Order: sequence, then C-alpha cells, then structure tokens
Amino acid sequence: MKIIENPSQNIWSELIKRPLQNYETIETTVKLIFKEIATKGDAAVLKYTNLFDGVKLTDLKATKEEISEADQLVSAELKAAIQLAKRNIESFHIAQKTDPVAIETMPGVRCWLEKKPIQKVGLYVPGGSAPLFSTVLMLAIPAQLAGCKEIVLCTPPDKTGKINPAILYAAQICGVTTIIKSGGIQAIAAMALGTETIPKVYKIFGPGNQFVTCAKQFATQFGTAIDMPAGPSELLVFADKTANASFVAADLLSQAEHGKDSQVVLVTTDQLFLNKAVSEITKQLENLSRKAIIKEALQNARFIYLEKETDALDFINEYAPEHFIICARNAALFTEGIQNAGSVFVGNYTPESAGDYASGTNHTLPTNGFSKSYSGVNLDSFLKTISFQQITAAGIQNIGESIAVMAEAEGLDAHKNAVSIRIKTIQNEANGD
Amino acid sequence: MKIIENPSQNIWSELIKRPLQNYETIETTVKLIFKEIATKGDAAVLKYTNLFDGVKLTDLKATKEEISEADQLVSAELKAAIQLAKRNIESFHIAQKTDPVAIETMPGVRCWLEKKPIQKVGLYVPGGSAPLFSTVLMLAIPAQLAGCKEIVLCTPPDKTGKINPAILYAAQICGVTTIIKSGGIQAIAAMALGTETIPKVYKIFGPGNQFVTCAKQFATQFGTAIDMPAGPSELLVFADKTANASFVAADLLSQAEHGKDSQVVLVTTDQLFLNKAVSEITKQLENLSRKAIIKEALQNARFIYLEKETDALDFINEYAPEHFIICARNAALFTEGIQNAGSVFVGNYTPESAGDYASGTNHTLPTNGFSKSYSGVNLDSFLKTISFQQITAAGIQNIGESIAVMAEAEGLDAHKNAVSIRIKTIQNEANGD
Repeated sequence: MKIIENPSQNIWSELIKRPLQNYETIETTVKLIFKEIATKGDAAVLKYTNLFDGVKLTDLKATKEEISEADQLVSAELKAAIQLAKRNIESFHIAQKTDPVAIETMPGVRCWLEKKPIQKVGLYVPGGSAPLFSTVLMLAIPAQLAGCKEIVLCTPPDKTGKINPAILYAAQICGVTTIIKSGGIQAIAAMALGTETIPKVYKIFGPGNQFVTCAKQFATQFGTAIDMPAGPSELLVFADKTANASFVAADLLSQAEHGKDSQVVLVTTDQLFLNKAVSEITKQLENLSRKAIIKEALQNARFIYLEKETDALDFINEYAPEHFIICARNAALFTEGIQNAGSVFVGNYTPESAGDYASGTNHTLPTNGFSKSYSGVNLDSFLKTISFQQITAAGIQNIGESIAVMAEAEGLDAHKNAVSIRIKTIQNEANGD
Repeated sequence: MKIIENPSQNIWSELIKRPLQNYETIETTVKLIFKEIATKGDAAVLKYTNLFDGVKLTDLKATKEEISEADQLVSAELKAAIQLAKRNIESFHIAQKTDPVAIETMPGVRCWLEKKPIQKVGLYVPGGSAPLFSTVLMLAIPAQLAGCKEIVLCTPPDKTGKINPAILYAAQICGVTTIIKSGGIQAIAAMALGTETIPKVYKIFGPGNQFVTCAKQFATQFGTAIDMPAGPSELLVFADKTANASFVAADLLSQAEHGKDSQVVLVTTDQLFLNKAVSEITKQLENLSRKAIIKEALQNARFIYLEKETDALDFINEYAPEHFIICARNAALFTEGIQNAGSVFVGNYTPESAGDYASGTNHTLPTNGFSKSYSGVNLDSFLKTISFQQITAAGIQNIGESIAVMAEAEGLDAHKNAVSIRIKTIQNEANGD
C-alpha cells in the first residue's frame, strides 16, 4: 500500500499508470493458434484444450443431459438469487430500448435511424478460480433482449471435462443457443473463424486474462468486432470524512480479491479517514479466504490524500476508473463532474458488489483508463444502427443543387451526375417531353 | 463486369467476398513509425511527411492566416452548399440525442445511465485525388454536437505544404480545435501517442487507405478506440422492373469512381433490367472524367439475377453492403428485412450522392461486411455511457441476500462481506446497539 499526500499535478500521470500489458510475446502464440484453427477447426480446438486445460474432450458442445444435470446441482437458494438478479438486469436493460429516430431534414428528404440486433454474438466466460456465472447473466441477458439470433457461449471445462453447473444454469435461462466447452485463445479464434462445431460470430464479448484479451484484439483483423479490450479489474473510492471506513475497507478488499493484478485506489480529502481505512483493511483482511491474493493486490494499492475536492475530481477523471464509489457529503460534485468511469456507485449503502451481481447495471466495464473512450456493455452493445433515407421528386430538386456543387468541388462528377440525371428527368417529365 | 444468373446458395460465400486486405507487410512499417513517433514526436512526423507526401514542413499546425486565406478562396456557391449540408447533418444528428435512462429496479435500488462526450477525438480526412471536405462535416459536426472538448483534425498537405481550402473552411465552421497538416500512418500514430504539437486523443475516426486502416487498428493496442476498420467503399443496388436503368447506372458509376478497388453490385429480379443497366453504364461512362478509375473498378463489379425477392434479400444480408439502394415496387420487404447494411437509400429519387453529401445521414459507414457488427458513425460514436447506481439502507437489505449468495457461490467472500458488513451495521443501528 502506497500512501501519497497531496501529489502535485506533474506526478499524476505516474499515479494513474496501470501495470504495462505487453502482448508481443503472446501475439506469436495467438497468431499460431488462429492459423491452426483456420485450417484444422475442431481438431485444433480439442488439441489446445488438452494442452492448456489439461482435459481430453471428444465433444466440444455441452449436451442436453449436462444442462439438465446442472439444473439439479444448483441449489434452490442460488437459483432464487440468480433469478432475482436476472429480473433486475432485465429491467435495467429493457429500459435502454430506444425508438427509431426519424426526421425530415428538408421538405421531401426523410432520414431515419433504426437499431438492428447483431445476429451472431459470442460470449466468453472465464474459468479459473471463480466460476463467473454472473458474467453469463451480464452478457446473455442483453443479447437476448436485443434480439441476437445466435448466442454462443464459450467457457473452459474443468479437469474432468465439465462446466460449472451454475454457468450452465445461467446460460440456459438466459437463452444462450450454443454452449461450448472451450476457453482461452482457442475459444476466441474458433468464434472469430468458425469451426465445424463452433459458429463464427460477428462480435465477441466478455472478460478474460491477457491471452484472451490479445486473442480478442487479433480477432478484429478478421472483421470480428469486440466489446472492449479488457485489463485487470479496478476500483477507485472517493471518501470524505462522512464515509464509513469499515464499508470502504470492505469495498477495497472486495476489489483486491479479484486477482493479484487488481487495482485498488482510495482518494480522500480527510487524512484521518485515510488512516482509519488502512487500519480497517488490515483488520478485515485476516478473515478473508482469498487473503493471499488480496495481499499481493494491495502491494499496488494507492491511498491518495488531496486537500481539495475539485482536485480529487480532476484526478479521478484522469485515472478513469472502471468502478468508482462515491462516499461523500458533496456527492453531486462527483456524479455531475465525472467524465470518465465505467460504473459509478453513490453513497454509503452502494457497494460495488451490488453492481457486480444483482442491482441491474452491467458489470462488463472498461478498465485500464479505457472509459475515456469506451462504454461498458449495455443493450446498444448488441445492436447496430442503420441509417435510411427516402427522397421524393420534390426533395431531390430541393437538395440536388447543393449535392452537385459539393460533388464537383471534390472532383467526383459521377456523383454529380447521379443527381443531375434525376433532376433532368423530372424536369423533362414536367415539360411533357 | 461479371453477370451471374441465379447463383445457388453454395456459391454465395464466394460472391460476397471482397478483395483480401493483407496487412502483414504494412504492419512492419506501421510498428516502426509508431516507435519513432513515440520517441521523437514532431520531428518524426515531419520526417515522414517529407518522405511520403514529398513536402518539407516547418510547422505542423495550420495557422490562423491559412484558415482566413482559405475562407477567401472558397466560392460563395460552395459555401452555401456546405452550409446547407451542415444544417441537414446537424438536424439529423441532434435528433439522435437521448435522455438519460433511470429506473428503480427494486425498492431502494436506483440505476441510471448517462452519456458523456469523449473528451478528445481525432478526425482523419484523407488527401489524395479528391479533397474530402464532406468527411470533415460528417465527423466534426457530431463531435461538436456531442460536446467533445478537443477535436483534432489531421489531413495530408499537398506538395506546396497547403491544405485544400474547402477542408479548412469546413473544419473552421464545424468547431475543429486543432488542424494538423499530416496524413497517413504518421498522423494516426501521432494522434494515438501525442507529440509536442499533436494532442493525444482517445478515439480516432475517419476513412483512409490500407496504411491508415492498419495504423488505426494498431492504435487500439495503445488504448485508443477507433470508429471502425475501413475498407474500399461499396454499393449494392436492388432493382426490379419498376426501377429506372439510367438512374441505377448513374449510382453504380458514382460508386465506381471512388477508386479502382470500389465494390459495385447490382442485384435484380428482372433480367431485362439487368441488360438495360449494363448498356446504360457503358453509355454514361464515356462522359465521366474519372473514366479510367471507373473502368478498373467495374472489372470487379457483379450483376446478379435472382428470381425471388426473398432470395435477393437473403443474399443482400449475407453481403452486408456499406450502401444499399432499393429501387423496387416492394421496397418494404427490403427496408423491413434488411439486417446488415451501413446506410439504405429508398426509391428512385434517392441517390447515394445525397447521403454522401447533404441529406443529413452520415457517410462514414462500415464496409467489407462489417455492418454485420458495426454501426456507421452517428452521434453515439462520440459519446460513451456511464452507469450509476444509488442504493438506500432499505434497498441494500432488499437485495443484499441475493448478492451474498451469488458472491459465495463464485467463491468471492470479500464481495459478500462488502454487503453483509453494511446490513449488520444497519441492523445494529436499528437495534440501538
């Protein structure tokens, strides 16, 4: 834990730095696996699943039997919790639906914009130490609401070749159409290129480690879109003296348990609070099962004291946190002034956990400062807009001259001709020629 | 020109293929230039401007004098046309503004979504044979409407070190904050990394040749977002016997004049019409100034006859055209059924030229089949969404149990603790402890 008091603006750029992600060595592996999957399909996916996940599969698709078995294995309590989360996530994402935009920009020139679902999407759900069924909800629910026709989910199998039952259960109730037992680079490559079993998709969503992230970025070279480049998860808390140190400590610890590369930042205008939060962290840490991971993550944690709230806001906008908790009397300054953040949590009773699981907001969010340009996943992430226009004979006469003048100035006379040939015809018809 | 009659579905994948873009050789150059600009800044930009554009500049920024000189050089007629286009583009993009989404997903759990402008954006406007001031309008107008603070425009200078006056004029009236005389890989690298003169931006927009496209894709590795990967421009026209062959020919020719790699496709349910369109093209071609380019482009043109309209629609959705013109009695089948297209033009009096310049829709659109997952540029392209939530003491008690159950099932007990510590405190306070 680093405590930094009143850092001057010229060291901010140092303070907002995340650990460097170097993909150069990974890139070679990624390219190799893409090439192999392009030619060998399923066989290559199976080979790398054996190599990386240590399990020999014969079939990549989860079967109906496995799905109904999973249904038996998930407790009624967990099912109820998942269903509650599902309802809230649905409500919030349904609320994001918009009507088509349609206007007449000039008499006879009607322009409109419609959103259409991306027809085939791929959802990546990491395996590893935590079975992230919550990520299934966050990706499959908006995909289904958007109207995506094919929803492919890839997640790595465990050593016995199975997928965690809660992941299967969540996938099933959220309308996933194909569940594939495959993770890592090979899963991303298979969804980008298509194999005998794994459908080629148009956009890939979901978090993952550096291998998955590098593979997603490489997939864009094949015309596959991605939700965003993902990095280690982050939380920045702003707290003043009205904040509750034990709540804030619990939030920072919850972020730290994600992984040893998790980013944990506290910004406060109260030095006393800073000390209280640090000692609360030390106290609470002892009882947590992922203590070892948390301790490693906390080595990179930053506790920053800034005298002025406006400086704090400026710093936070420079940092552009994935998660941003505000525990302060003057919360409005921050909710109104925040420009760059993935998701914002306001007030003492709004832990990040709420948004991670069940409040309704999406937990797939831009890390690594990418909230400066990327949105978190939302309903629109599964839609694309198409513009339309319809011009009447009167309309083309109203607008035609301007088009012709501009086309000529750009040196494109066939563009001009496409307008003038129409206008001439209309005028000839009017003259009875 | 290839004429294909009733192609069976199993050769569609061949028919929708665009010319392969191979970036492997370009990539080495791109990486080299990025590395050099990262260390040498402006000096490297100037060096490559000399090397690629053949002009030795001393200053990269367009001066106030140059801008006011440009204002003198643009004709009143062209200014009026640009102003009309600007008004229409503004109207259509203003209409795309949305209200924040806010709901209470459960009692005491309030979630909302707000859009915020991307603070620093970079607009790329190609040089070359046509001075694309229309692209300035299409990018700078929505950027300004979105509220982007820094709007940087890069465009290559001519051999005398100047920027086309119409580009400067358009940039000036659309609120561009910095105009840089630089194009190609070096311009993209400079906007992604920042130099002494060229501000680092968060998202880069705009069309370009294969060097620019490859550089934009590489820029994403540095956390810079891009609008979309761009390829050669395309038009697909669907026409039945009610269409006007000379209008359709003019549209196809206008597409072909963009460049020799332009994609031109006609799909029709009327064989007679197909023949008429082909002979109209041959006739009109003779009088066009960019005849040589058009002839080359037409070598790859495809004229496809399909008996059934529904097959035509399926084929068009597979092709996913950038521009899609519908000249058919049964236009509704296509406007309702189209899933994948950049921009759609409906009816005999709606040439692509209208959307290219002045009707109000944006002309920066996904090519190469990318409309399967990408939107064309619109107001949202310059905004990002941030989700917010605020939970009351009652709210956390309503939702807390579900969060705790899910966190525990994912093996994340610090996440659970962040909720239970709050609920315990609330209950203790209620009990007067």
